[in-house]
Amino acid sequence: MTVSMGDIRQAAERIKPYAHRTPVMTCESFNQKVGARVFFKCENLQKVGAFKFRGACNAVYSLSPEAAARGVVAHSSGNHAQALALAARMRGIPAYLVMPNNAPAVKKAAVEGYGGRITYCEPTLEAREQAQAKVVEATGAQVVHPYNDDRVIAGQGTAALELLQEVPDLDVVIAPVGGGGLASGTAIAALGISPRIRVLAAEPEQADDAFRSLQEGRILPSVHPQTLADGLLTSLCERTFSILQARLEQVVTVSEEGLVSAMRFIWERAKLVIEPSAAVAAAVLWEHKIDLSGLRVGVILSGGNVDLEKLPWQAAH
Amino acid sequence: MTVSMGDIRQAAERIKPYAHRTPVMTCESFNQKVGARVFFKCENLQKVGAFKFRGACNAVYSLSPEAAARGVVAHSSGNHAQALALAARMRGIPAYLVMPNNAPAVKKAAVEGYGGRITYCEPTLEAREQAQAKVVEATGAQVVHPYNDDRVIAGQGTAALELLQEVPDLDVVIAPVGGGGLASGTAIAALGISPRIRVLAAEPEQADDAFRSLQEGRILPSVHPQTLADGLLTSLCERTFSILQARLEQVVTVSEEGLVSAMRFIWERAKLVIEPSAAVAAAVLWEHKIDLSGLRVGVILSGGNVDLEKLPWQAAH
Repeated sequence: MTVSMGDIRQAAERIKPYAHRTPVMTCESFNQKVGARVFFKCENLQKVGAFKFRGACNAVYSLSPEAAARGVVAHSSGNHAQALALAARMRGIPAYLVMPNNAPAVKKAAVEGYGGRITYCEPTLEAREQAQAKVVEATGAQVVHPYNDDRVIAGQGTAALELLQEVPDLDVVIAPVGGGGLASGTAIAALGISPRIRVLAAEPEQADDAFRSLQEGRILPSVHPQTLADGLLTSLCERTFSILQARLEQVVTVSEEGLVSAMRFIWERAKLVIEPSAAVAAAVLWEHKIDLSGLRVGVILSGGNVDLEKLPWQAAH
Repeated sequence: MTVSMGDIRQAAERIKPYAHRTPVMTCESFNQKVGARVFFKCENLQKVGAFKFRGACNAVYSLSPEAAARGVVAHSSGNHAQALALAARMRGIPAYLVMPNNAPAVKKAAVEGYGGRITYCEPTLEAREQAQAKVVEATGAQVVHPYNDDRVIAGQGTAALELLQEVPDLDVVIAPVGGGGLASGTAIAALGISPRIRVLAAEPEQADDAFRSLQEGRILPSVHPQTLADGLLTSLCERTFSILQARLEQVVTVSEEGLVSAMRFIWERAKLVIEPSAAVAAAVLWEHKIDLSGLRVGVILSGGNVDLEKLPWQAAH
């Protein structure tokens, strides 16, 4: 039992009233620079500024009325937390978010802005899981994991589904890989529509656990990942590992310089605010790590949540 | 004789193969913040990153083959220079740009990147006009003024034409005003389609010559304009003054704080890179200078060319 194309189509119907159908954009100067025809699926323009809303929304609206009434819970301080809070608010149910007490104020504010109820804990995985278990015990809320969850994976796959509906004749599709929810959903959706499409996942060299895991044939943990792409620090789980192992052509790693430079070019020329994790997928083309010249390539620009005070090309200042 | 709705429709047909039909975007959080339903016409996503391509393109493709062969000329170092260079390159004719010798290297490089031929001169208006006259004498090139030109005004009007084709029931449309080419084209197009639409022009308080000119009933020069909106430093000419006098409801001025804060919000939440001049139009809503609550408002986001090293909200650093 895994996620099927049918699950993704159902997810698309389910989230349609709530999520944006994001635009697909092209940028002539990016095409020229990389020598391919690139179609950007703009999930930076999705609700909460990231594809994460798709998965969270599908999970929230998959619940029975009884289960839904008890709410949803996750430990996350990133885009998934905001996405879950917003989806829950839309359905009128509580969302409980467990966050480390050292999470940046701006992230707390964002989750509270969407009506999420925050429980603070020590900044360790153990403390977060304990705190989450307590919430479940007290409320009966459903855990919605950011990627180790079929409903979430099916939801994330709807981005690639829309992309291929709009541009059916893609040769390649590229998604960034962290925990593997987006990459898994993308692979299932893309191959479900275009059985001969090549599916690539993009990862920072300095957080290359998915690359190494797929090479080794078993999940290797992420060891001291050091990357600006802070959405890609997590490791695969069994669920996403097995989906990706069966479907990915390969994981391509990119350098920090490459992702910053692709990110900056997309801001400057495509006029799109994207986050470093989104730039990782574009950097596969930018760095010409593998030959995609002349091909039609879909790139999932996964999100656009950045701190405008602290841009990576200004790091040296 | 002035620019008619017919001229704008013709311009739209003429530039269609060359210019982008830019998307119209909405941003729920911006709507909530300003209490109106706002439709952004994304000219930051136009070729060369600004609406200027429309006017330049219409002018270039309006020329007879004989006139075209001699090329086009303008003195400009901004978006118009890039736009004219690109339009000329598309038609395969020379573009001569007169630029002050102290123009930033990045602007020279951009014009050269589009194949423009640069003549340098002293940074005074007199020297620029002399240098331009010399180019005309030597080459027979056609002058394409950035706004004092019917072909250019008709071209700029095509942005509002597209906006109203896509969102016909707007109550208000807002464009920034500098020399008045975009504002004039917008007013003619918008009123040509929706005779009861309210047309507003937006201007920085610190470069409020159009505001004062329309109040006084005669063109007043811009005196030491001090604004981040560097696309709006120029003054109206007779041609644009008379168009605007007959059609604008009013010019609304906005503060520097207002335009920076609207700009930042649009980067953060709408994920769009826009330049300060574009933010001026959005700031009319942002600052609530006039009551537009509950209305459907079109805003022309005029361009997205910014220096990513030097963002206005970082000015204090």
